Amino acid sequence: MSLPHSFFPIREDGGAVIILDQTELPHRRVELELDSLEAAGHAIRSMQVRGAPLIGATAAWGLALAMAEDSSDAGLASALALLGATRPTAVNLRWALERLEAVLAPLPASLRAEAARSEARKVCAEDEAANRAIGQHGLTFISEVAGKKGGPVHIMTHCNAGALATVAWGTALAPVYAAKEAGVPVHVWVSETRPRNQGLLTAWEMREAGIPHTYVADNAAAYLMANGKVDLVIVGADRIAANGDVANKVGTALKALACLEWQVPFYVAAPSSTLDWACPDGADIPIEERSGEEVRRILGAEGAVTIIPDASPVTNPAFDVTPARLVTAIITERGAIAPHRLRELYPERAENA
Amino acid sequence: MSLPHSFFPIREDGGAVIILDQTELPHRRVELELDSLEAAGHAIRSMQVRGAPLIGATAAWGLALAMAEDSSDAGLASALALLGATRPTAVNLRWALERLEAVLAPLPASLRAEAARSEARKVCAEDEAANRAIGQHGLTFISEVAGKKGGPVHIMTHCNAGALATVAWGTALAPVYAAKEAGVPVHVWVSETRPRNQGLLTAWEMREAGIPHTYVADNAAAYLMANGKVDLVIVGADRIAANGDVANKVGTALKALACLEWQVPFYVAAPSSTLDWACPDGADIPIEERSGEEVRRILGAEGAVTIIPDASPVTNPAFDVTPARLVTAIITERGAIAPHRLRELYPERAENA
Repeated sequence: MSLPHSFFPIREDGGAVIILDQTELPHRRVELELDSLEAAGHAIRSMQVRGAPLIGATAAWGLALAMAEDSSDAGLASALALLGATRPTAVNLRWALERLEAVLAPLPASLRAEAARSEARKVCAEDEAANRAIGQHGLTFISEVAGKKGGPVHIMTHCNAGALATVAWGTALAPVYAAKEAGVPVHVWVSETRPRNQGLLTAWEMREAGIPHTYVADNAAAYLMANGKVDLVIVGADRIAANGDVANKVGTALKALACLEWQVPFYVAAPSSTLDWACPDGADIPIEERSGEEVRRILGAEGAVTIIPDASPVTNPAFDVTPARLVTAIITERGAIAPHRLRELYPERAENA
Repeated sequence: MSLPHSFFPIREDGGAVIILDQTELPHRRVELELDSLEAAGHAIRSMQVRGAPLIGATAAWGLALAMAEDSSDAGLASALALLGATRPTAVNLRWALERLEAVLAPLPASLRAEAARSEARKVCAEDEAANRAIGQHGLTFISEVAGKKGGPVHIMTHCNAGALATVAWGTALAPVYAAKEAGVPVHVWVSETRPRNQGLLTAWEMREAGIPHTYVADNAAAYLMANGKVDLVIVGADRIAANGDVANKVGTALKALACLEWQVPFYVAAPSSTLDWACPDGADIPIEERSGEEVRRILGAEGAVTIIPDASPVTNPAFDVTPARLVTAIITERGAIAPHRLRELYPERAENA
């Protein structure tokens, strides 16, 4: 199956690990080689790569790069510590590191570099396959709406949970790509997603794929829903607690509340690597507080840049938690299910319940 | 009673009508003379003045300027038409124009110029007095919270419904100024208010008044409320329908929904001139769609300006409607009351019910 997009958020080229630098998008399409553990850590921290699944994949490759430098037990421990501290909310980071640690720790140091590369490749391949499956499961909800009404299905998303947030296909946007492939007409409401404006990335993806879309301020969500202009909302996730509470980009919970008010289905699309069974509910999910500098620089309507003075403090939480009861269904590669029934998709977890 | 702020959004100086050009704030404090009907119309359209009560006051002065130019019946009619078409949502505009029309229409043309100035002065004086009363009524809610907990009362607002949105004192911020005056400690969560960033105006007012505050992206509201960091929300209004539905700056309804979810009281502060008894409910309130250019220019975290290409359309509704049942109380100069009981504050309207 050919990809619906012409770019690779992360890829292997010969021996090199290449990322698309998302801080340069949508201006320039710049690829960077990650040539060290430090470069991988920087890429995650600085959001050259972002999106929970892509953070996980980059962490896996970061560990592979680390093992090429120092595959001793001490080298492994310090690489795990460095990468683990890059960003706190996306559980895919921890998931990828634990997965590689489980493979690498029992091995002699001499075998770790190659094993790490191999496992990083598997992480990436599985992410692509999972997202492809999410797309097909999500497509059923889109097709259902399309079957009931004329014209395109209006899908709102938040942040970027597209191909750029993953190894390929995306999570929230995988069903959109699947709809395009299946010939189901869609129109995407792209939310700006202040303060980092990841809506620009989603708009870029939609332009690349030729999918009709409209860019709106985050504040417009209630207006659009109240006026019947949104058929369904699909967002990604950075961590889903065992009870189905969803941590995702800040502002997500506001959209979920609007969905409840105006009876718009609210779907969360995420691979199993985003599920945190060790986390009983959303209150236990650490929420990253990012630098206020991300909020302080404002472009006025007249084109002047305002830098909010220090006399006005800034708070910048990067995520929020959407309570499970606001979520219509969680869509993973195994299927779609109501959040309180999430365990039914994962019978192997039942014994831990 | 001295004003809590050192600026005048609109004022008369000798024969001249002077406004503070809010498109220059917070960079520069520029005053402009409105010397014609056209200048007044431009000031409203271009948001040199904004905020429902200030739009009403500016329209009243615009009509006075028009009468100095041409006080004939035709001149009156065309001035009413020009000003009436500047912005559609704030009912204070229509209210002010109808009020002046009722005074001016029966008069001979020779008396209209002076009568219009006199009535514009009254509109301004009444707005100041109404807002002062709103501040006192709203203060009781802040004091109630202060009496139950230690530390400052955390008040979230949206857009700017401060002194800058009115002739003086503000609506949503009038209770905040009253609290400062009464020695009740407060801290204000200032919402950015994309796409026009009126949060910058609120932050500027708070700095001018020395009131503790923190600037946040609009998306942060759910996170803050879910974490107990907001004691109450107070917003202004552009039009309140007879059933208590509230049109206010886009994004307001999202905050009201979050208040319902996390049990935070949600107050709407507005003078009687914002009440539209002819409008049975929110569905009848016209919502202004502004230029997409307000949304297209984005400042990235790295300082680069992105102009969203035309291949990505933009929608830019300027207001939304908060259903009455999400509103804890509406605060007018006559007192505070649950929205479905609004008519009880206005017994003279009962016969029209």
